[in-house]
Amino acid sequence: MDPRSLITEDQEDPLAVPEFLPTAPYRGTRDFLPPEMSVRTQVFGTLYEVLERYGFQRYDGPVLESAEIYEAKSGQEIADQQLYTLTDRGGRRLALRPEMTPSVARMIAGNAGSLQFPVRWYSHPNCHRYERPQRGRVREHWQINADIFGSESANCEIEIFELIHDMLRALGATEDMFVVRANDRTLLSSALTDLVGVTDEQLSPVFSLVDRWEKQDREKLAETAAEIGLTTKQFDRLTEVLGAGTALLDELPEAVKENSHLVRVLSSGSADLVRFDPLIVRGLAYYTSTVFEVFDTSPENNRALFGGGRYSDLAGLFTAQQIPGIGFGMGDVTLIDFLQTHGLAPAPRAEVDVVVIPVTEDLEDAARTVATKLRRAGLRTSVPLEPRKLGKELGRADKAGARAVVIVGQEDWEHGNVTVRSLATRDQQQVGVDAAAGAVADLLTP
Amino acid sequence: MDPRSLITEDQEDPLAVPEFLPTAPYRGTRDFLPPEMSVRTQVFGTLYEVLERYGFQRYDGPVLESAEIYEAKSGQEIADQQLYTLTDRGGRRLALRPEMTPSVARMIAGNAGSLQFPVRWYSHPNCHRYERPQRGRVREHWQINADIFGSESANCEIEIFELIHDMLRALGATEDMFVVRANDRTLLSSALTDLVGVTDEQLSPVFSLVDRWEKQDREKLAETAAEIGLTTKQFDRLTEVLGAGTALLDELPEAVKENSHLVRVLSSGSADLVRFDPLIVRGLAYYTSTVFEVFDTSPENNRALFGGGRYSDLAGLFTAQQIPGIGFGMGDVTLIDFLQTHGLAPAPRAEVDVVVIPVTEDLEDAARTVATKLRRAGLRTSVPLEPRKLGKELGRADKAGARAVVIVGQEDWEHGNVTVRSLATRDQQQVGVDAAAGAVADLLTP
Repeated sequence: MDPRSLITEDQEDPLAVPEFLPTAPYRGTRDFLPPEMSVRTQVFGTLYEVLERYGFQRYDGPVLESAEIYEAKSGQEIADQQLYTLTDRGGRRLALRPEMTPSVARMIAGNAGSLQFPVRWYSHPNCHRYERPQRGRVREHWQINADIFGSESANCEIEIFELIHDMLRALGATEDMFVVRANDRTLLSSALTDLVGVTDEQLSPVFSLVDRWEKQDREKLAETAAEIGLTTKQFDRLTEVLGAGTALLDELPEAVKENSHLVRVLSSGSADLVRFDPLIVRGLAYYTSTVFEVFDTSPENNRALFGGGRYSDLAGLFTAQQIPGIGFGMGDVTLIDFLQTHGLAPAPRAEVDVVVIPVTEDLEDAARTVATKLRRAGLRTSVPLEPRKLGKELGRADKAGARAVVIVGQEDWEHGNVTVRSLATRDQQQVGVDAAAGAVADLLTP
Repeated sequence: MDPRSLITEDQEDPLAVPEFLPTAPYRGTRDFLPPEMSVRTQVFGTLYEVLERYGFQRYDGPVLESAEIYEAKSGQEIADQQLYTLTDRGGRRLALRPEMTPSVARMIAGNAGSLQFPVRWYSHPNCHRYERPQRGRVREHWQINADIFGSESANCEIEIFELIHDMLRALGATEDMFVVRANDRTLLSSALTDLVGVTDEQLSPVFSLVDRWEKQDREKLAETAAEIGLTTKQFDRLTEVLGAGTALLDELPEAVKENSHLVRVLSSGSADLVRFDPLIVRGLAYYTSTVFEVFDTSPENNRALFGGGRYSDLAGLFTAQQIPGIGFGMGDVTLIDFLQTHGLAPAPRAEVDVVVIPVTEDLEDAARTVATKLRRAGLRTSVPLEPRKLGKELGRADKAGARAVVIVGQEDWEHGNVTVRSLATRDQQQVGVDAAAGAVADLLTP
């Protein structure tokens, strides 16, 4: 018999513990404590700078959007399975944005009259997808979106590829660590119809097959090809075509190549930025010509980091005006995995540069006065909030990553002086109060 | 007879227009186009810097939280009326965070073992409240949260007040533009019971009455006081007490004042940072002693900008460990209203510093080479994406806010030169390609 069953409701249960709510975040979402947040802000701060050096301007939009903008555009899988939806008291069906493209399409359409096209825009929203959490997949992630809207020029492709290289290089990556694999859906269509003999009806399922080419084994692919209606000979030819790389271009009709942005990129001074690869398709339905994916070249992390492409009619849901766009989305999870794989993730920043320590509680006001001077000189400076022995405070300053302390002692202070001490060398010197900031700065710049 | 009724379903309706989805954001939420986003990022970027100069470390958490953490803590009004909730397929009841405090309490509780208390943390989340949209109230806003956790020292109050002054000054505000009005709920309780004769049962409704003191007319207040059970004499005494300002402190018992952080602040070297004001209560239930609100002093915008306070047991929902906290939340809407009222809102940043213009399409690769050099020198640089006449391109560069252009001409380029031109003075000079960045930088720094 369970001894607890003897306890009646009126008695205090001696085994009861107060019930606390769980401290873990909702499954698939993440808390960013200061060390992780410091990595995130350093990495993305660097990327913002690169984007702005290209003239990309940041925008933002709401987390909540009308659900219908995803149901119409994002493909069935996302709308049915991956959308967090709710209904407000006015009966409006809302969704937490799973991606930024429909939102930016809405904004571009609504403001098309006042924009000087082409425009370069970027954003860094948090997006929600209701997926089973697994490596590289979370339910809320932070994604850089960078797009050029309103131009049909191949210069857009070149600029986007340049930008990607510069963004990754700014994070410390070298060219051997990643590769931009690019394709043009119109080239692939031509290859499939003209070289493999795929019919118009078969095109869409064959695109899906190509999309899975590197993920499934050969037997499974052959099986699917047969289901679509391809002969064994066609399947072999498809295999050849997809493996041909740049050589495939020689086999394609001039008329098709002439109109391809990607072919123009490959004949420009920026050809080295991408590798033509017939295998790149990208699942999402709205890309119409150029598509690309950036891959980690490390065998340890051999996967797509992010990708994007061109859509000829971005805002068709919202306006009759045809506005093309090309861009990419870059999520924080895969990006930081990439940096960690290559030893490029920045260390979390120290909490402060310097701590100002009053020797007694009476000197707390004095310590604050000194701290104010240091902060005005741009130094990240803290003062202890609670009285502690000097030795203990030095240990805490060291733990916080400070490289210097300023000690405010009674007699010194009466003479207008303080002691500046290096936590690395333990060297210390007495200086006038107004010289403290300079002395600390000298310690920080070796 | 309506002529359209003649049209049968099979005929094409000549009056039909294609149906487009609306381009406005969901009611009460906002799109931030680049000009507004530039203001937001400049303002908050400045605030991040000030916070970090005090040793505050940024953190972040998920938009989606378990709904129960708000239902338990945020007060009935928010939970019932103002929460956006949804249920996931696992039956978990979730909410879009309406504020950050419950999230940060969860994080602090979950990581208390590894933190070196006290900690200074800040965040800048988007929070959702389902309110009727009105001036200064939106359904999604961006709020700075700054808190010190784990210290019961009055030094926390002093630092928070110093920080607030420095944050507003960093945005260009002078001391006459705002005032920090502060109270201590324990002082107010003592004044109400000891001086006005309020009973313990009456305390809570009288606090609510004080909270409405400046918002309702005197008749309405007197009526409510009578309903609570205060006599006319008590109501008059209450009026005296609430209007007494600092003089009220002289009337309060020493034992009460001794334990008040606010009284310690008022006797420190930082007393000038706040004005003691018995009228400040703050509605939210979890504040336990110090409470404060920052007011705009402009008669045009005479309202609370933001506020905060101290809670003696922040994380009680999540842990038995008693962790005190003091901090504030600062929303973007009222803050930017304040800056606009005082003419302090920053201008949106120009899109770029400089545009590199190829005179012919053949020179596009050359222009990109020059642009790369300028970007490496830190200049925000764009190149045209589509071919246009030079005059037209100069006009577009001017509109984009560029102050200089670099013109790449055929003959110049062959000799390794480009032309650097000021858009303000129209002066131009021919320089070697590698000298272009320096020449442009000279034009930008007057």
